[in-house]
Amino acid sequence: MSENHNNREALHIGVVLYPGFQALDAFGPLDCINVLSWTENISLSLLSTTLDPVSTKPPTSPGATGQSILPTHTFATAPPLDVLLIPGGRGSRGSSPPVQEAIAFITNTYPSLKYLITVCTGSGLAARARVLDRRRATTNKSSWQEITAMGPDVDWIPRARWVTDGNIWTSSGVSAGIDVTLAWIEEVFGKQKARNIAEEIEYSRHEDPNLDPFAELYGL
Amino acid sequence: MSENHNNREALHIGVVLYPGFQALDAFGPLDCINVLSWTENISLSLLSTTLDPVSTKPPTSPGATGQSILPTHTFATAPPLDVLLIPGGRGSRGSSPPVQEAIAFITNTYPSLKYLITVCTGSGLAARARVLDRRRATTNKSSWQEITAMGPDVDWIPRARWVTDGNIWTSSGVSAGIDVTLAWIEEVFGKQKARNIAEEIEYSRHEDPNLDPFAELYGL
Repeated sequence: MSENHNNREALHIGVVLYPGFQALDAFGPLDCINVLSWTENISLSLLSTTLDPVSTKPPTSPGATGQSILPTHTFATAPPLDVLLIPGGRGSRGSSPPVQEAIAFITNTYPSLKYLITVCTGSGLAARARVLDRRRATTNKSSWQEITAMGPDVDWIPRARWVTDGNIWTSSGVSAGIDVTLAWIEEVFGKQKARNIAEEIEYSRHEDPNLDPFAELYGL
Repeated sequence: MSENHNNREALHIGVVLYPGFQALDAFGPLDCINVLSWTENISLSLLSTTLDPVSTKPPTSPGATGQSILPTHTFATAPPLDVLLIPGGRGSRGSSPPVQEAIAFITNTYPSLKYLITVCTGSGLAARARVLDRRRATTNKSSWQEITAMGPDVDWIPRARWVTDGNIWTSSGVSAGIDVTLAWIEEVFGKQKARNIAEEIEYSRHEDPNLDPFAELYGL
């Protein structure tokens, strides 16, 4: 893709990081955003409790492999954001201080956002932040019972690759984050832009949000 | 997936990092490897020139967004490896010191590897390391002419999601890294393990290495 940054004001995107976020939940969407930034004016902040590296290794799986990512801001020093992306992962469970800080940040930041996007069990964090109440939303299909119980006032949709309700975009598990991000890019930057990015990353998109092979697999 | 680490000796996997590697080239395979490590004994090393964080931001695109990853070892301190994974990305071009060090590391390490896996333009680094000579291999379809010119003695296969030749597994662009990694896991750990991981990450696999929608798209 050619470099063709237009002059529109930068869109500020923030990503919530916490120990045990799932790598592809974040880096599927982030790769799409990186490629988007080759031609559009995007500002990206990676947010966590401190500026220390954040590992994808689940705190409950010390023998697992993981990778450590550098945040760019703490929750306390985050710039104003247009978009907040919340990845899921084994670390999204429980009530460790990083999880509690992430939930508080989501609650406080949502009212000023243009868009909220969650991937996989990231919708559990959004549900606990009470921003999904009375909204249609979806989540990871293999953790359906556990995550939906976190949001008793959410209108959970079991059969969906992703769901939009107002400015909230929630996706199914892990790789569905790529599909919801491309769908969101299509909404904001147009169909051709989303297609260009999918072709650049040689990704065969799920383009129908209602087609969900994994709902059936997990008996939903 | 339940924690069920078996007692077989750890499989040592190394990943080559350099400035401007493409995020999904690395983190598609790494997510599969992370999930694999929940039930199998895997040791992972992230390798670069120094231990400084390595950014996905292409050196030629200062306005682009990127993420910084922490290496675990330098090329000089890498442990013995069974598997080497080489992601592609805009940074894989040219002859900067990190790229030259990566190429030298590939040349020196290949003879003792059980498997070499490349994603996208990562095969250009392997070609320049001369380990693909007289082998069948593929690469990113949108950069076909540029990358194949780096390996005049390679038997480049234009229409393939991935190609195996002996212990070398090369994939097409970016998201194809997920498919080649799951195919490799199927080969080494069995069909059910690969299926379990694909279902865990809710990924609709390309299971036929010869079906390549992007070769046609790019006129190959």
